[in-house]
Formats: sequence, structure tokens, C-alpha cells
Amino acid sequence: MELSVTQENLTKALSAASRVATSRAGLPILGNILFRTEGTRLLIAATNLEIATVVYIGAKVVKQGSLTVPARIVSEFVASLPKGTISISVKKNRMSISAGTFNSVINGIDAEEFPELPSISVKNTVKYSINTNDFKQAVTQTIITSSSDTTRPVLTGVYWHSVDGSLYLAATDGYRLAEKKLLKTTSQISAIIPSSSLQEVLRAIHESTEEIEVLIDNSQVLFRVGDTEITSRLIDGNYPDYRQLIPSSSETGITLETSEFMRLVKIAGLFARESGGSITVQAEEQNQQLTIQSIASEYGENTSSAKAVITNDGQITLNSRYIIDALSVIDEPSITFRFSGRLAPCVISSSEKSSDYIHIIMPLKS
Amino acid sequence: MELSVTQENLTKALSAASRVATSRAGLPILGNILFRTEGTRLLIAATNLEIATVVYIGAKVVKQGSLTVPARIVSEFVASLPKGTISISVKKNRMSISAGTFNSVINGIDAEEFPELPSISVKNTVKYSINTNDFKQAVTQTIITSSSDTTRPVLTGVYWHSVDGSLYLAATDGYRLAEKKLLKTTSQISAIIPSSSLQEVLRAIHESTEEIEVLIDNSQVLFRVGDTEITSRLIDGNYPDYRQLIPSSSETGITLETSEFMRLVKIAGLFARESGGSITVQAEEQNQQLTIQSIASEYGENTSSAKAVITNDGQITLNSRYIIDALSVIDEPSITFRFSGRLAPCVISSSEKSSDYIHIIMPLKS
Repeated sequence: MELSVTQENLTKALSAASRVATSRAGLPILGNILFRTEGTRLLIAATNLEIATVVYIGAKVVKQGSLTVPARIVSEFVASLPKGTISISVKKNRMSISAGTFNSVINGIDAEEFPELPSISVKNTVKYSINTNDFKQAVTQTIITSSSDTTRPVLTGVYWHSVDGSLYLAATDGYRLAEKKLLKTTSQISAIIPSSSLQEVLRAIHESTEEIEVLIDNSQVLFRVGDTEITSRLIDGNYPDYRQLIPSSSETGITLETSEFMRLVKIAGLFARESGGSITVQAEEQNQQLTIQSIASEYGENTSSAKAVITNDGQITLNSRYIIDALSVIDEPSITFRFSGRLAPCVISSSEKSSDYIHIIMPLKS
Repeated sequence: MELSVTQENLTKALSAASRVATSRAGLPILGNILFRTEGTRLLIAATNLEIATVVYIGAKVVKQGSLTVPARIVSEFVASLPKGTISISVKKNRMSISAGTFNSVINGIDAEEFPELPSISVKNTVKYSINTNDFKQAVTQTIITSSSDTTRPVLTGVYWHSVDGSLYLAATDGYRLAEKKLLKTTSQISAIIPSSSLQEVLRAIHESTEEIEVLIDNSQVLFRVGDTEITSRLIDGNYPDYRQLIPSSSETGITLETSEFMRLVKIAGLFARESGGSITVQAEEQNQQLTIQSIASEYGENTSSAKAVITNDGQITLNSRYIIDALSVIDEPSITFRFSGRLAPCVISSSEKSSDYIHIIMPLKS
């Protein structure tokens, strides 16, 4: 192998690939990054066997070839080099990398030993082209309620599925639930994508990324983000029928500024650390006033209130951290918060009628 | 106690004090912050018995009094409040804090139980007024070589001492040494100030701080930074006679751009992780070329070079992390690096003749 690339392109590619490379797994080669020429391009790839990242960069290829080298040292070295041209050549499993007066030799492992990169068959594949901002919002709004408890694997992912001509993303950890209507589609789809893979796709997005292509087959999903391709396995299993948990209507409704509500909940939450974040929300229709109280604790207690548009009195006890999470992903100036008594799930959504996102939190017993 | 203050002033004061308050020590009251009215001012204070921070803020005092409350909850609560006026009142060891519709009650401990705040006698006290930028630079340039090894307490501080009409700051951990000439003085001084206390003073500096007052007596030092007073004990003991370690002249001299040298050392250091950061610096007078090499390791090896102004050939092996530390605190475009063979200490300083800072690193055996 003999080629030259720009420092800027190679640094970006190595940064994306090295996030996936892992030295924790038993196989040392998974801590390496694959360099492989493909015609006039250089392929940079890494995999942890769950997810694979492949980046293509333009290269001046003198001699085709391939080698894998340890992720950390090669990415840190290249990132430290001055901008400009980098020359790479391989002899006997050793990669020489030179830029100006900087010369390094890195010991590698034969590319033959690298796991085969996953590929998606065009057959039986559903394909979406999604505006980057829509994708970012929908994924951010749903991964937040996915579970980190690996004893129920299906809940550690986001459920992508079609209902009545629309693609929905949903996630629940059993205590809360988020659902986002992302786009109209005629395809039928039902796939659980690992939240960790979606996180990786979010990280791969650059400012210049306008659109993300998503290809899903029976066992895998591929995200095409500019010159980067991230392939992940899907999670096996049936997603629970979460839609039955969404209350169609509620007795008490509260509408107020998102930032005001956030401040009230954060402050009450400070006093609720000993009680697992437990705070009580009280709505009074007559005064049009919302009051949030922390349970009195060793430290003291807190009561805060704000004006709000309120329909019907009501009271509910919730985990303040869950409300903070919900408000942090709703990018709207005002929100609606509704519930029916102390035991039914409460629903947080944008106060806009057209809202395509709902966030549900199960109450705490108080 | 009954008073009102602005949220902005109280937040700043609590932030400074809460850094010193500690819940780790056996005494729970050390995790509290003292509130005490002093005429038309509110005193906010915390201490860990080694260091005490006292901040005075303007207040509208209705009724004098005092109380201590847990540092974390009060500082987080006040910081979360909207800007504007905060009302504080105390009844039966409970502090009520209100701002607009936000009301909290925090359980406190009687101020009588708080340790007495240290005071410095004006007698036998040496006093300096130091320009803030000079202070920051001198402290930053010396604490970096102080030791974190508490088995030799004197080395965990910075030695402030007068020599020939100047105040010098110096620190050494046995492997490296830094000395800064800070200002002219007629006072005689010899005091070892804990590095942790100096760190705390650096954190207390605001953009508006023009000057820092330093008062030193036989056992304590007081730093006055705007409205904040930080008092620290001095470290007992005799500081080693470090000046004998400073080589007056060296055989080999290398002068080059600081940023260029930094890049060379950082890159070589990447390949030197297995060998404890060990890199070899080689100077060739004939080519006016500096070459830095990492020792070949499991990962590979690195050789980088740069043009430099060189007097006499030479070679020395050093810990790359120590060179990086030294260069990171020398705020000059070019530096001079000099040494005499492989065994004598090497000296890094600004290439300016007038430099009042030197940084010494002991070589590694190679």
C-alpha cells in the first residue's frame, strides 16, 4: 500500500472509526482500524462486532493494499500532525506515516484477520432519506427514555415502526415513554435499533450533513451520513404494545412556559435528592396557579409556584429527574402537562396542537 | 437575622465558599457555610481548617444575626433562582430564603458551633500588592512543579522567599524545579504556601480583579482578592536549598519556536507511553537541526525534527510529560533549552535574555 491523503480528512475519519474500535473485547484486532485502498479512495473502518463504522476518503493511491493498526496511537498521531499532505506506505505489516519532518512507523496486524465488514442486501430493504435536523430531534427525543437495563434487551433500543402510513420512533424503560412521529411512509417496518448505535450516528453528524439515509433489512440497519457508513445489528424480539399506555385524554391540564416549568422542577429537585427525586405538582384552576413542592427532608423543604393556564384541579407526585429529561428534549417555548389523578400516567407535550411528540411519565406513589 | 441581597452577589459568594466547605472531614459543620451580618454587610464563610474563605457582600440588613447551612443545597438553590432580590430570614436554626414565588426553608446548625475564622495580626506581617496577571503567571508557573507526595510536606507547597532584594517563588518535586522572580522587595520573607491554597486563590480571581494583596505572618498567609479573603496556614519546615541545582551554564543550547517544540514533544510522547514518557532529544550544530525520537515500543516508533538555533551537539533523554508541562506555562513565542551531557539537569527558559523564569528537568537514564 502506498498513498497520500490530507491530514484533515484522515483525522476526521480516524476520529469516527476510533470511537467504535474497542480494546475491551477479547479480540485485540477489534482495537485496530482497517486501512484499505478501494480504487481512488481509502477506506477507514472499525467494528466492535455490534456496530461497524466505515469512512471513505479521497486519496492519491500509488499502490493498492491494506493493513490494520492500533486505533488510539494512529488517530492521536495523525490528529497531532500539521495540516497538509500525509504519506502512508506499508511494508511487512508496518505502516510508515510521514508528514513534513514527522515520521512514524506503527506496528500493525494483517487485514486478513480483520472481521468481514457487514453489508446490507438491497433486497427486502426499506430505505428512508431523513432531513438531518428531523433525524437528530427524533432520535434525541426517544433514546432518552430507552432503558440501560440489559436484562430486557428490547427496551435498550428505539422501536422504529410504521402505523397508518407514518414512521414512528418510540422508546420506554417501563417508567416513562416517548413517541415521535417522524415522517410519512408507505413502507411497512418494525425494527428495534440499539440506542448505542443511534448515539454513534448522532456523533457522526457534521454541520454539512443535510440528509441521512437509513436502510433497514431483517437483521441490520445502515446509516449513511455523508462519507460515513454506520452499520448496526437490530435487536431481536417483540417490542411491547406501548401505545395502549398513552392516555387519550386527561382530567387536569396545565400549560406554561417550558423554561419556567424547568426552573421550578430543577429547584424542587434539589430538595428531593434524599427522596429519589420525588416532587409534588399541584394545579389550581381557580387561581390559575401551579405549585411544586418537594417533600420535607433532612436539608429542608421547598415550595415554588407559577402562573399557568389550568383546566381542573389536580395533584400528582413524579420523579423530578424524569420531568427535567422530558423538558430538555422538547424544543418549544411552551408545554402542556396533563394527568388524571395520582395514579394514571402523565403526558407532557408541546402546547402546539400539531405536536407530533409525546412524553409519558408514570407517577410515584406519594 | 433578616436581610436582603442580590442573587448575583450571593451566588458568587456561595460559589467561592462552597469550594472550601467539605463534607469529607469528620466534622459535619465543615460542610456548612456561615452566614453572618456585619453592620451593612453579609459575611459568607467556609473553612476546612487548613484554608478559610470569607466573602463580604453588600446587604440591606433589617436584623443582625447568623446561621450555618449545608453548602451544597444553599449554593445550588441560590444559583438556580432568577436574578433580583433575595430575602433571607432565620428562625430557630432554620433559614428561609425567598425570591419571587420561590420559597425554601433550609435546616441549619448554630453559628456558635462554627470554627473561629482565622485572623492575621498586623504585627510581624509582610505585605505585598501584586498585579493580578503577574500573580497568576508566577503561581501557575511554579505550582506545576510542586509535589503531590504528602510524605514530604514542604515539597507540596510553593516557597516564597526573598533573595537580594527580590521576591522569588519556587517549587520542586525532586524531578523538576521551577523558579520565578516576581517583584522587588525590601522585606525579608521565607514561607512555604500550600499549592492547594494557591489553586484556590487562582479560582477566586475574577476579570475585574486588578490587584491581589498578600499578607504573610509566621504561620499564616492571607490573600485579599476583591471582596474575598482566603486565609491559609503555612507549611512548617525548611525548604531545601534548591538554588544549588540550577546550572549556571550549559554546553548545548537550542532555541526554537515554543509551539513547534511542543508539537514535536507531544507527538514523540504518544509513542513513549509504555516507556514512561521517555524521549530522546538530539541537537546537531552543523545542520542546525533538532531531532526528537521515541524509544521503539510495541506500537512502533517516531522520529521528528525541526530547524533550530543550536550551539554544540548534544543528546539527552527526558520525560516528555515534564517538557509539555514546562512549555505549557511559558507564555513566550520562543524558548531556549540547554543541557550538558546526558546526566546534568536541563534548563528551559524563555529565549529572551531578560527572562525571570527558569524550569529545570532532571534527565532520565537512557
